Amino acid sequence: MKVHTEYLTFETKKRMAFVHITPQVEAAVKKSGVQEGLAFVSPMHITASVYVNDNESGLIQDIEEWLEKLAPSGKNYRHHQTGEDNADAHLKSLLLHHEITLPITKGKLDLGTWQRVFYAEFDGQRPKRVIIKVLGE
Amino acid sequence: MKVHTEYLTFETKKRMAFVHITPQVEAAVKKSGVQEGLAFVSPMHITASVYVNDNESGLIQDIEEWLEKLAPSGKNYRHHQTGEDNADAHLKSLLLHHEITLPITKGKLDLGTWQRVFYAEFDGQRPKRVIIKVLGE
Amino acid sequence: MKVHTEYLTFETKKRMAFVHITPQVEAAVKKSGVQEGLAFVSPMHITASVYVNDNESGLIQDIEEWLEKLAPSGKNYRHHQTGEDNADAHLKSLLLHHEITLPITKGKLDLGTWQRVFYAEFDGQRPKRVIIKVLGE
Repeated sequence: MKVHTEYLTFETKKRMAFVHITPQVEAAVKKSGVQEGLAFVSPMHITASVYVNDNESGLIQDIEEWLEKLAPSGKNYRHHQTGEDNADAHLKSLLLHHEITLPITKGKLDLGTWQRVFYAEFDGQRPKRVIIKVLGE
Repeated sequence: MKVHTEYLTFETKKRMAFVHITPQVEAAVKKSGVQEGLAFVSPMHITASVYVNDNESGLIQDIEEWLEKLAPSGKNYRHHQTGEDNADAHLKSLLLHHEITLPITKGKLDLGTWQRVFYAEFDGQRPKRVIIKVLGE
Repeated sequence: MKVHTEYLTFETKKRMAFVHITPQVEAAVKKSGVQEGLAFVSPMHITASVYVNDNESGLIQDIEEWLEKLAPSGKNYRHHQTGEDNADAHLKSLLLHHEITLPITKGKLDLGTWQRVFYAEFDGQRPKRVIIKVLGE
């Protein structure tokens, strides 16, 4: 059994941003030497998510607006009484579900034609970490 | 360590449909010979989800209406400028979270009394694939 | 390869409740002897979730109100024609996504500074089970 771990760091320029990270996950799978198994990818923060969907800029904007509609920023959240202003970022992270697991077959991510891995940042402009854990044989 | 992979294909008659797939996942677990481990089940598409919940037809209709309310179809999404008309299917897939992991104990899915595995299709009427990856010993 | 399984039981006093369970998951990881791997944590019910976020009481109340807004209780759901009254609890479980996977590095949960594991109960006041499956080497 092989287990391989990597950490990525992202510092987005905007508070909310979507970063395509399939190449980094593929590279981690290759480095692991795992032929058959699973890749687990997760932010190490609670105001960000890793998800799988389309790498199409219009859709990414649709996702951004949809998240803002269902988990709006700037509201009078109780969490803000602690001095924080990012309750919406926590809710957006929950809505998109914060982590992802991916299948590995014959040494590669076994994804469909349009499946791409994204890091979704909801409270950026500071360094944030993502963990990749590859497990298999 | 054992790793077993299977692919299922679904072509639903309606654009949106919910297919009960616990028997297929159980069959894959049995075939794998894994006694203790995890089963990973995911669509290979970004307009579908695999989730765990109740096999009760009224609730399934409630889920369908709820998804349509929170991620409505037919809206003027940016994604539709590419010629697509299925932005809502992407959002529904994100809302339900696209993949699932399940525990295996003593050679069987270790689920509670009412837990059932479903394939949720949001843009059907064409062949779509699901991957099952069983991992353990 | 090591696989370790534990079951926890919760009986919350209120119908909806959030229980911090990081210590129990850490204890299961320690007992497993796994140094590198994954911990899978899931309710064995379809009216509860396990999720990762902040252990801050204000935010937890924000999450509770947000879930109630997006998946309201007491509505005239089809599921209630079966005699049930908890359709909202099913929708809340789907919204928060019902299970979680966590990374293990050097024998411990490899979480960021603020990441905590929670059991979210949406239809409590009766004994409910959670399964922890630790897998690795």
